[in-house]
Amino acid sequence: MEVTRTLARYVVNAEFKDIPQNVRQEGVRSILNWLGCAVGACHHEAVDCALEALGPFSGAKEATILGREEKVDILLASLLNGISSHVFDFDDTHLRTIIHPSGPVASALFPLAERVKISGAELLHAFILGVEVECRIGNAVYPEHYDVGWHITGTAGVFGAAAAAGKILGLNEQQMTWALGIAGTQSSGFREMFGTHCKSFHPGSAAKNGLMAALLAQKNFTSSNQVIEAKRGFANVMSTKHNYAEITEGLGKTFEVTINSYKPFACGIVIHPAIDACVQLKKEHGLIGAEVEKVELTVAPLVLELTGKRTPQVGLEGKFSVFHSSAVALLFGAAGEKEYSDEMVRDPKVTSLRDRVDAKIDPKLRDDEVHARVTLKDGRVLTKYVEHAIGSKEVPMTNEQLEGKFHVLTDDVLGKEHAARLLALAWKIEGLKDASEICRVSVAQK
Amino acid sequence: MEVTRTLARYVVNAEFKDIPQNVRQEGVRSILNWLGCAVGACHHEAVDCALEALGPFSGAKEATILGREEKVDILLASLLNGISSHVFDFDDTHLRTIIHPSGPVASALFPLAERVKISGAELLHAFILGVEVECRIGNAVYPEHYDVGWHITGTAGVFGAAAAAGKILGLNEQQMTWALGIAGTQSSGFREMFGTHCKSFHPGSAAKNGLMAALLAQKNFTSSNQVIEAKRGFANVMSTKHNYAEITEGLGKTFEVTINSYKPFACGIVIHPAIDACVQLKKEHGLIGAEVEKVELTVAPLVLELTGKRTPQVGLEGKFSVFHSSAVALLFGAAGEKEYSDEMVRDPKVTSLRDRVDAKIDPKLRDDEVHARVTLKDGRVLTKYVEHAIGSKEVPMTNEQLEGKFHVLTDDVLGKEHAARLLALAWKIEGLKDASEICRVSVAQK
Repeated sequence: MEVTRTLARYVVNAEFKDIPQNVRQEGVRSILNWLGCAVGACHHEAVDCALEALGPFSGAKEATILGREEKVDILLASLLNGISSHVFDFDDTHLRTIIHPSGPVASALFPLAERVKISGAELLHAFILGVEVECRIGNAVYPEHYDVGWHITGTAGVFGAAAAAGKILGLNEQQMTWALGIAGTQSSGFREMFGTHCKSFHPGSAAKNGLMAALLAQKNFTSSNQVIEAKRGFANVMSTKHNYAEITEGLGKTFEVTINSYKPFACGIVIHPAIDACVQLKKEHGLIGAEVEKVELTVAPLVLELTGKRTPQVGLEGKFSVFHSSAVALLFGAAGEKEYSDEMVRDPKVTSLRDRVDAKIDPKLRDDEVHARVTLKDGRVLTKYVEHAIGSKEVPMTNEQLEGKFHVLTDDVLGKEHAARLLALAWKIEGLKDASEICRVSVAQK
Repeated sequence: MEVTRTLARYVVNAEFKDIPQNVRQEGVRSILNWLGCAVGACHHEAVDCALEALGPFSGAKEATILGREEKVDILLASLLNGISSHVFDFDDTHLRTIIHPSGPVASALFPLAERVKISGAELLHAFILGVEVECRIGNAVYPEHYDVGWHITGTAGVFGAAAAAGKILGLNEQQMTWALGIAGTQSSGFREMFGTHCKSFHPGSAAKNGLMAALLAQKNFTSSNQVIEAKRGFANVMSTKHNYAEITEGLGKTFEVTINSYKPFACGIVIHPAIDACVQLKKEHGLIGAEVEKVELTVAPLVLELTGKRTPQVGLEGKFSVFHSSAVALLFGAAGEKEYSDEMVRDPKVTSLRDRVDAKIDPKLRDDEVHARVTLKDGRVLTKYVEHAIGSKEVPMTNEQLEGKFHVLTDDVLGKEHAARLLALAWKIEGLKDASEICRVSVAQK
């Protein structure tokens, strides 16, 4: 069974006209969500740091660091865009594998589009194919591969970036097979890095190394033809599970991007039901927070295991506190990057309400389910049951909600008006003559 | 037990004055052997290919591709030097782990020396420390790590390159710990790639990624402090064996570079005893080949298992033929890259003698042992028993033999006289004010 070659052949022969409308639409939503994250975090210290360290070695400055004025070469831009798109932990999630699919693929494609002139449709097509490749490879080895300690967004992502870039570069079947090989032999990234800059380095590295693999294969730099399935290749070396049918069956018929999901809140997914409930209660009853006597949550066991931090001291710890998260949701109707700042976790209004949030476990509850009960000072009791949190497969974020998230992320960087212009452009990507227009517009004019 | 930090602390605090003379000398021999390999293969198609693909993205052209006129940025130079130094499979071997130690470390250090002005002694010190780091990490996980399919020169080498580059960059203990972390989370390379350009890509990639790790750590790009020993770090994720004492005990007292070894012949190490015997017989009896009636070898079992190819069709296959190798050894007294060319395996003089070489197995023989029996057309019988092949730990290559190998590799690239100049400079590295002089002299003047 030729696993790698079958996948390569599919990518090489795929045509955009065969991609169904709903698949294209989810591709656009994924790109839009990724773009908001990348622009929103473009001045994060991890990006600053990497640019300061590696900028001096940049080649021809033909690619945009999304959101920023500096330009760098396309490989370095891939790395930096990958870092910024992931560093808020706010990007997309392929729930079957917990791969964050857009980071490795889109972060390589946009810089490449600034060098190789391509249309938005070409970029969108390559993006959908890259996501398909990385998620299928992830499906074949998940969860064993992840459980042993691999950060699957990096390890599978590099294949997706290579496939997407290879599609743009017009690789033939042999070259595409090699590109996957060169990519695979760079597959790397430990979960041990979570909590450090290296976590967001993984999708960045996957984007850069995948792009490099495609460039090398284009010049006939040779590799194995069986990097995925060989005895000493990816699946056998890096996983105890390898279900190759996940890779080879239904190619061109099913599309993994259609089950991509987007986070409405800038924190671990297990707190989302609680936040969702609090935001809904605030909206339905016009709450401002001060009238709240106490909040009682009934949550799934994992919620307190992962996010039971009672008194977070810094913003990052707030993301691991269901108490803080529920308090900001009631106070501000949001739980974005702003609500997890260092100032916010120390704000007396927030800490006062946080101390009145309680949570108890019900082992019968699923991870995306919650019961919230808010008692007001006037004695009234408000309740909300969330069956599936927003952002789940059952209740995906609407386009309007994605737009709201985009603005929250990018308004401070670009200004509201310019952010709206970038957003409008992202929605229209399929019709763009020149995909790199998005890179140019991602930077605010002075 | 702080494994990673202990190693980082040792590298940061190490002083050259504490490195014993024999250790320095073996460091020089390693660098010299590596330099000959890198210059000798600098026009190999794998290097051409990679340069053509990635050259367009090179930054400031401040580093030499050893042996070539083109210059590129220091990261790309690290990659290309790593490829050329390994692509002939003729570089050094740390026999305990079969790591090829110089490739990842020296390939990063020389480009860095062209940017950061350092003395030869500083480079030699960083080289010895880098080799120490990669080989100790290798010792901790070998052989299980290798057996599962990892190309250990790539996976361990990246740590060595980071440590060596970090020493030159003057990282403090925390930064060095991060540098090892950033390096480790890029650890990669499958044995599946053997036989393709990607094999030599591994030491190149390790050199480049290790250097990048040190540059990032210098700007305080954060990583884990326990990349080696963490539950989801290098040793646990990539090996079933992890003997941390190999990493932390005897630091500064024992030096892995002292057990480095060098190949006298450009092929797998199992054929070396047979070649050694044939070369000795040729020299002792002034044989020219035509007078030989037949050759009978008695070899260890692994010899025919790995190198039993009877009628090789191309040069690379000749490396897997004990018959071809013995024939060229008798005819030319050598088995270098030239004796494994496509023309050579088809040369009637070679094929005629090759067909008269026979080999039988003796399970009692060790891998580095051989009995050779040559019957001449005049009826005389010559015999040679090799107890340990040249290049083994017991019979290391002498300085003169290393010089001979250096010339065989570099004379065609540089001309004999210029090669001798480079060789003399390499011997003197410890006294050089500017280590990068070696890079400049590695290129022949027009």
